[in-house]
Amino acid sequence: MPNRVYKKVELVGTSLTGIEDAISNAVTKAAKTLNNIDWFEVVETRGHVQDGKVAHYQVVIKVGFRLEE
Amino acid sequence: MPNRVYKKVELVGTSLTGIEDAISNAVTKAAKTLNNIDWFEVVETRGHVQDGKVAHYQVVIKVGFRLEE
Amino acid sequence: MPNRVYKKVELVGTSLTGIEDAISNAVTKAAKTLNNIDWFEVVETRGHVQDGKVAHYQVVIKVGFRLEE
Amino acid sequence: MPNRVYKKVELVGTSLTGIEDAISNAVTKAAKTLNNIDWFEVVETRGHVQDGKVAHYQVVIKVGFRLEE
Amino acid sequence: MPNRVYKKVELVGTSLTGIEDAISNAVTKAAKTLNNIDWFEVVETRGHVQDGKVAHYQVVIKVGFRLEE
Amino acid sequence: MPNRVYKKVELVGTSLTGIEDAISNAVTKAAKTLNNIDWFEVVETRGHVQDGKVAHYQVVIKVGFRLEE
Amino acid sequence: MPNRVYKKVELVGTSLTGIEDAISNAVTKAAKTLNNIDWFEVVETRGHVQDGKVAHYQVVIKVGFRLEE
Amino acid sequence: MPNRVYKKVELVGTSLTGIEDAISNAVTKAAKTLNNIDWFEVVETRGHVQDGKVAHYQVVIKVGFRLEE
Amino acid sequence: MPNRVYKKVELVGTSLTGIEDAISNAVTKAAKTLNNIDWFEVVETRGHVQDGKVAHYQVVIKVGFRLEE
Amino acid sequence: MPNRVYKKVELVGTSLTGIEDAISNAVTKAAKTLNNIDWFEVVETRGHVQDGKVAHYQVVIKVGFRLEE
Amino acid sequence: MPNRVYKKVELVGTSLTGIEDAISNAVTKAAKTLNNIDWFEVVETRGHVQDGKVAHYQVVIKVGFRLEE
Amino acid sequence: MPNRVYKKVELVGTSLTGIEDAISNAVTKAAKTLNNIDWFEVVETRGHVQDGKVAHYQVVIKVGFRLEE
Repeated sequence: MPNRVYKKVELVGTSLTGIEDAISNAVTKAAKTLNNIDWFEVVETRGHVQDGKVAHYQVVIKVGFRLEE
Repeated sequence: MPNRVYKKVELVGTSLTGIEDAISNAVTKAAKTLNNIDWFEVVETRGHVQDGKVAHYQVVIKVGFRLEE
Repeated sequence: MPNRVYKKVELVGTSLTGIEDAISNAVTKAAKTLNNIDWFEVVETRGHVQDGKVAHYQVVIKVGFRLEE
Repeated sequence: MPNRVYKKVELVGTSLTGIEDAISNAVTKAAKTLNNIDWFEVVETRGHVQDGKVAHYQVVIKVGFRLEE
Repeated sequence: MPNRVYKKVELVGTSLTGIEDAISNAVTKAAKTLNNIDWFEVVETRGHVQDGKVAHYQVVIKVGFRLEE
Repeated sequence: MPNRVYKKVELVGTSLTGIEDAISNAVTKAAKTLNNIDWFEVVETRGHVQDGKVAHYQVVIKVGFRLEE
Repeated sequence: MPNRVYKKVELVGTSLTGIEDAISNAVTKAAKTLNNIDWFEVVETRGHVQDGKVAHYQVVIKVGFRLEE
Repeated sequence: MPNRVYKKVELVGTSLTGIEDAISNAVTKAAKTLNNIDWFEVVETRGHVQDGKVAHYQVVIKVGFRLEE
Repeated sequence: MPNRVYKKVELVGTSLTGIEDAISNAVTKAAKTLNNIDWFEVVETRGHVQDGKVAHYQVVIKVGFRLEE
Repeated sequence: MPNRVYKKVELVGTSLTGIEDAISNAVTKAAKTLNNIDWFEVVETRGHVQDGKVAHYQVVIKVGFRLEE
Repeated sequence: MPNRVYKKVELVGTSLTGIEDAISNAVTKAAKTLNNIDWFEVVETRGHVQDGKVAHYQVVIKVGFRLEE
Repeated sequence: MPNRVYKKVELVGTSLTGIEDAISNAVTKAAKTLNNIDWFEVVETRGHVQDGKVAHYQVVIKVGFRLEE
């Protein structure tokens, strides 16, 4: 693992059903254009409320991926 | 949307089953006395342990709602 | 409750299925060697990604337990 | 000033024109129902973007006011 | 303890004599209008200085109380 | 709004005249290459001083935009 | 003092009377099993409220001690 | 630029008119006794409220200046 | 109060007896060379432990004072 | 320097030998695809341990670069 | 890697020569009593000054290690 | 050590060669005008990049020194 360099990008995943699903949506979306995603970190969890109920979750994550050598 | 003002209040929802349910309980409770709730933000996640098992979740959130003009 | 003293230790629970399960795994593990665990606090939520999908969750928690008098 | 107690509430002021105006809108609104407001603290500054331009500012503030004795 | 919801409000207690007294003044004041206060958290400790001496303490706390079911 | 994903990028806008102008410069610049910018968040405000006067403002913001589905 | 190593552990001291006493209770308790405690750092101050009065203080501290060489 | 050393001092500028003016007032004041001021960083923005209106802004900044070699 | 400027300096007060005394010692010391001290803010509370007992408190504060016009 | 805009990206440099080398590796890598890099900021320092020894350093940095006008 | 649990402990390494050496000293010391150390995170860097020179470095780290299954 | 008072000042040391050297430069510079410097704390590490290479390090530190009694 000599001197690898990684990049982190910040995404907001949304979901009607829950926090894990919002994370998964963001990771899946990122994986369409980024290879080598290695990890994610949750930065912030929030959501939208409508008619007195949670309408959807918004989870801000950072995903880290290895840059090609 | 001319010059709307919102207020944020801090609540702690609890749940026997999970984080989303604790959030939902706090939002539902708030909606009984507050109109126009628009969003929530998770501030802190913690919980109670009994007999070596998670007994309930305690999720501190802020809910934001629009003040009547 | 005269002058009780508690200790907090920091653990990382992992899970293939979700955040609550990762918390539960860490609490259960801690309870094998610690009596009187009273609460947990989530410090950080992150996870491992493989083949563009969340492979497992890593939840950093602190657990608090009462020291024997 | 013997043992006065103050309360702080969190508001979000919005404005089409700028940060000071958003603060002012929130303070003015609060002053309609709260007496004795003494100070404000900016917690967060953000805003909405439309068609590639800042559409309005959202400034989260706390206002502090003295509780009646 | 099924699904209880708590609210937190932010107060500033002041005192001529010390930090604990400032906390106590804020809690006592809050208890006049709020039932079921369960805990407080110190957010910030500051104070006023006059003629080169501490004139009074200002302690910002949050108090948490259970909302009626 | 089913499962939209947003990205946040961090920019530093500068301006000779003020904070709002620095924000606006960064948002306008970002909008040249990014569609669907929805919001900005101020991260840090600083500036350059020359000859004992504020020479220009530097405002670090994050802008959030919706990724194409 | 060549290359000494210290460890920090996190404790919660409680007291009916005040913050210093809560700190002291935690330090005294720690000193029963740890030698060479050198310092403490206050992490958080909170407490329990009963019948509208502060019932006890809970002070979270870290204590640092030198590991035997 | 071999091994220059800078110092930072913390100031609070006030203004009746706005945030930039408060920053400017603090920088101008500092420049009366300090040479070589290079930059400022906003630490906190707050203000005083009177009769339900913002009476003046208080902006806490740090200014950085090069120490003479 | 037209455009006053304040400065903040960071001090560490120590005391054998308690937190308020440590604050007071730092404020009194500062007042010997600084006029117009208006307020203090506690930044950090820590202390030295000797023979398993709190030996002295170290309280880091900032004191704010008005600069002469 | 009229109204320049900068972008910041977050990278993780790794190194077998030390923190400066990890920073340097990330900066060098970034400079292959980005012109006009002006500065870096260290966000976090961590590393991997193997067989009880530091195996490599991981330094999270942000690099800032000027966007072409 | 099914449901592994890790523990983190906080240490302060010291060194006469530099930051990496202080980290290394803490990790080496920890490895004498802990198996399976996987990573470290730098929490704080500070040091002692004597006769106007850095006398030694004190680096606060957390080390993470896998608990035996 | 009865009731000593310390002051902390914030400096930015720079160096072409590394972080320890930047710290050392700031401490050495401070020691020319301040007696009794006891410790330093690293606040922030950053640096300047030129031609795709780290040109110099900028380390923000606080130095603490005992005020004469």
